[in-house]
Amino acid sequence: MKLSELGEFGLIDFIRSTTDKFKKPEHDSWQQLLVGIGDDAAAWQSNNYIQLATTDTLVQDIHFNLNTITWEELGWKALAVNLSDIAAMGGIPRYTLSSLALPGELEVENIAKFYNGMMHLAEQFEVALAGGDIVAASNIVITVTVMGHTRGKTILKRSTAIPGEQIAVTGYLGLSAAGLEMLQGRISLDPAISTILRQGHLHPLPKVKEGQILVEQGVKTAIDVSDGLIADLDHICECSKVSARIRIEQMPVHPLVKANFPNYQQLALYGGEDYELLFTADKDIIGQAKQALACPITVIGDITEEKLPQRVTVVDSKGNVIHYERGGWEHFKDEASKAKFA
Amino acid sequence: MKLSELGEFGLIDFIRSTTDKFKKPEHDSWQQLLVGIGDDAAAWQSNNYIQLATTDTLVQDIHFNLNTITWEELGWKALAVNLSDIAAMGGIPRYTLSSLALPGELEVENIAKFYNGMMHLAEQFEVALAGGDIVAASNIVITVTVMGHTRGKTILKRSTAIPGEQIAVTGYLGLSAAGLEMLQGRISLDPAISTILRQGHLHPLPKVKEGQILVEQGVKTAIDVSDGLIADLDHICECSKVSARIRIEQMPVHPLVKANFPNYQQLALYGGEDYELLFTADKDIIGQAKQALACPITVIGDITEEKLPQRVTVVDSKGNVIHYERGGWEHFKDEASKAKFA
Repeated sequence: MKLSELGEFGLIDFIRSTTDKFKKPEHDSWQQLLVGIGDDAAAWQSNNYIQLATTDTLVQDIHFNLNTITWEELGWKALAVNLSDIAAMGGIPRYTLSSLALPGELEVENIAKFYNGMMHLAEQFEVALAGGDIVAASNIVITVTVMGHTRGKTILKRSTAIPGEQIAVTGYLGLSAAGLEMLQGRISLDPAISTILRQGHLHPLPKVKEGQILVEQGVKTAIDVSDGLIADLDHICECSKVSARIRIEQMPVHPLVKANFPNYQQLALYGGEDYELLFTADKDIIGQAKQALACPITVIGDITEEKLPQRVTVVDSKGNVIHYERGGWEHFKDEASKAKFA
Repeated sequence: MKLSELGEFGLIDFIRSTTDKFKKPEHDSWQQLLVGIGDDAAAWQSNNYIQLATTDTLVQDIHFNLNTITWEELGWKALAVNLSDIAAMGGIPRYTLSSLALPGELEVENIAKFYNGMMHLAEQFEVALAGGDIVAASNIVITVTVMGHTRGKTILKRSTAIPGEQIAVTGYLGLSAAGLEMLQGRISLDPAISTILRQGHLHPLPKVKEGQILVEQGVKTAIDVSDGLIADLDHICECSKVSARIRIEQMPVHPLVKANFPNYQQLALYGGEDYELLFTADKDIIGQAKQALACPITVIGDITEEKLPQRVTVVDSKGNVIHYERGGWEHFKDEASKAKFA
């Protein structure tokens, strides 16, 4: 059945029945949800913590392509990129609103697949779908909003980096960008490797628990790697009025990327969408964070006094500055394709 | 300058400088906003009240047309429809996130106009712009999310109407739909009347204070008139498992609509987008609400026991059922063009 044949009430009932089976009444988010799908607004009982809210939009043929992403993956990713933003604040995601602009001729089963993908991730992080809307449009535009809160008084910000601090990153870099290169048909790989690369690009796992642990360990400054390591570090530097120096040989490039992509350094530096956490702190705190976190933590450089115009410098093992051309990797992230400000 | 020439940081700075001049530091929303534009998520100090969140999407050439709406009006309306949803819960709107999907060739000054329109309304209701994103797209899609809270324990819901209650509506109906007919060039009117009709359609004032006063007076059930009086009353009936009977001669049709549009009854019944509050309560409470509210309150019918399949019945002054064809007014609200579920 097509979306345009379903009607407003039919569609709301359809979304409710698709998502209801994921409900976990023992979760706090669900217990405290007073009004969910089907009223003018969602409503829940608040706590005294600091509230967080973020929104992110994915546009067909700009941020995703239906030739390479499934509807389940699209639902997962649309939520994941927002959970990653809450993770980058050190917060706990709780509620989500989904706004889908879809063509009327779309098969309704694709909407079910979208919500299945989204709810699988939501279930994992105990996030409740609290409402949203579906509107008609010629091209698909997905906007997901996530609301959450901190556990205490600390928020991880972009504006608190201090010269002398180390720069560290969770996990590995470059997998998502390598996955995109592969999906775009520019490289063909062994099926097992392909699956991991595809997952890296289309099915990212946001570092939600990791962000909370960073807060517990005393970290104050973080961002998620969405635009690319250099661009995201640049965001921290701009907001904190500092500069940064990173050492290329310490970059935790994903081993499968290093083994299969000659341009692995550029993929790791500029690729983006890895949804790892990039953070700064003094040496002792980073040492503690390494102990506390199950995932790898790699120190990749240092925060320095502000040096303009270039805030982020990349050096080799001898300390020589490396000049990378970003030109060849513009397809990963056209600067004008996204400007996110919360 | 075009959007695509501005770059990510330039764009965020541009939005910040456009919206900063509207900041009112004495407002609670601004004081409690810990992290606004420019981080991974917005953050604010919470209170113990019930939290509310709603989202609404406007798509170019489906929900608005740039031949008839200015960018200021678009910014105003995109926020207004969401404030109206918070009003329909009896809540206080506090924070907003705006997500704009825009073509790269768009002139940046139009984005400034959009935010000027939005912030004029935000200022009026002490709502803080807390963040958002701007992404590239071929067609304009605007998604605004508003978060707020109640003042006490009561939320106005759709699911609490009881047989025997009166049905009442704030203000006047039909102005927005009449404005749309006029803007589409189907009728030409005196300039002073045109201005009022245009305002009604493109510059609606959400009934935020009115919703809060309804809660104080003991009202439990409300919805805002966005889909049209009949459709929105049908939402209440469906959610409350009741039926409704409305008396056509009691409909508060806007006098300018009555005087200039032969189809005024249909405009008032089916037009939608009036953003008035439609509510139910017993006679005494509605009497008190009339005293407490500055705007007109009109009783238009009664809630009855559930009678299917047609939940909402319209009767004339003699009690005879009137059968209206919705056909001629499909252009106001294609059922498939929007399904909102929070």
